[in-house]
Amino acid sequence: MINKLCIIGIGLIGGSLARALKAANEVEHVVAVGRDTAHLARAVELGVADSYETSISAAVSDADVIVVAVPVGSMKTIFSELSGKIKSTAIITDVGSVKGNVVRDAQAELGDELSRFVPGHPIAGTEESGVDASFAELYKGQRVILTPLEETDPLATQAVTQMWHAAGADVESLSVEHHDEVLAATSHLPHALAYTLVDTLAKMHERREIFQFAAGGFKDFTRIASSDPKMWNDICLNNRDALLDMLNRFSGDLHKLATAIENNDSEFILKMFARAKTARDQNC
Amino acid sequence: MINKLCIIGIGLIGGSLARALKAANEVEHVVAVGRDTAHLARAVELGVADSYETSISAAVSDADVIVVAVPVGSMKTIFSELSGKIKSTAIITDVGSVKGNVVRDAQAELGDELSRFVPGHPIAGTEESGVDASFAELYKGQRVILTPLEETDPLATQAVTQMWHAAGADVESLSVEHHDEVLAATSHLPHALAYTLVDTLAKMHERREIFQFAAGGFKDFTRIASSDPKMWNDICLNNRDALLDMLNRFSGDLHKLATAIENNDSEFILKMFARAKTARDQNC
Repeated sequence: MINKLCIIGIGLIGGSLARALKAANEVEHVVAVGRDTAHLARAVELGVADSYETSISAAVSDADVIVVAVPVGSMKTIFSELSGKIKSTAIITDVGSVKGNVVRDAQAELGDELSRFVPGHPIAGTEESGVDASFAELYKGQRVILTPLEETDPLATQAVTQMWHAAGADVESLSVEHHDEVLAATSHLPHALAYTLVDTLAKMHERREIFQFAAGGFKDFTRIASSDPKMWNDICLNNRDALLDMLNRFSGDLHKLATAIENNDSEFILKMFARAKTARDQNC
Repeated sequence: MINKLCIIGIGLIGGSLARALKAANEVEHVVAVGRDTAHLARAVELGVADSYETSISAAVSDADVIVVAVPVGSMKTIFSELSGKIKSTAIITDVGSVKGNVVRDAQAELGDELSRFVPGHPIAGTEESGVDASFAELYKGQRVILTPLEETDPLATQAVTQMWHAAGADVESLSVEHHDEVLAATSHLPHALAYTLVDTLAKMHERREIFQFAAGGFKDFTRIASSDPKMWNDICLNNRDALLDMLNRFSGDLHKLATAIENNDSEFILKMFARAKTARDQNC
């Protein structure tokens, strides 16, 4: 049971965590922190938070667990604002989709608190955002990846693991670097492709008509292009090297497919499509 | 009411049409044609077809409407086999995802029957295939595009329109060329991207692990990569020019995004993601 949980940035991800812990009776008081008081008041109105603060120092001073759930480009500022303001036993974690840069920001801004910082990333979400989109079941059966550092106190990792278990998630550990490579492949690259596809089509002449004839497959394929642009700008820039490597691999493979289509090379195309179908059918 | 409907290639698309027309009491007898007798017998067992034939000439001789639902690369052979074997009042249509090459094949192989051939394309489907995947509601509220030719008898177009209306679909007309351009953008390009993405990942070292950490967004994004490889090989090669044009546009835009990520160009990335989000939210 967490006495006081402080969620900095109470949107879909932070809000769903608060809802899940409340539903499991695993938290006594949730305080939401942000700048937009209307949004914060809405979180309280929805019962997602019990109170709110616009001042980080006021909110974190007596918090037992602090969850930083802001876009990854804003983590550094938050870490610097909370450093030196928290209880000596308080545990900090984050939910950022990129871990390398977030860890560097934490190392730069946190003092002794670094040993009680557990970098984390719940592999869950929808294309929606904001606290109104949050729901208690978001993490049920989903994976949360933690990437504890050498200096991380194992008890802190254990506490964050328990918190996510209470929210219904499975928890796994990866190294920071490995996390960022895997996520570049399975999440950041697909988002880049979906945004690009929709934008390519939107720029075309017959735009309205083109979308009019899109079927269910297109809607599924482009769902992630409805995600929050600011959040995904941050992710792309903060996982730049791993994402550029994946973009490079993908572009090379797409060029090979285009060449095969140009050359009527059925053998190449059939083999590639069959490999892809097998991989997806086996793994998804 | 259609007395005798002949479906050549009774998979997801042809099977669902037969089911829908039977459910609407709009067909008296459905005969399925193919080479695989086990599959044909299964269609009869499921009640999708009333009888089956492995010989095209036997099946089409007294058919009122003939629906050709084979991969687009096999249309030419089918047209040549049925030409001269059908009733003088029989109407032919197809369900191919590409219209240009199918129309050329029809023009080459059909004689007088060309005026009773109505090229068609239901914009519906799932990633599954085969008659077992068929269901009567597949076309409900979905679009069917017809691309009648100059020589097409308006009464034939009207009959095919009525058939699809009876199956629950909305029917629209496009020119052959326009259809192939629009579908290259909204369907053929996304399939090429999904197949390529899954194959790029499947070729990577940590393959199993990579897929293990894929979330719901990835599953939605890659669903179409589970589609039938033979069917999609045929589509890519038969709509080559329009698809290559789209691949070229897309690759250019993806390269621009990669350059912006490399240069930390938030302004470019934010604008592009926001344009895409707006286009998708408005149109999907």
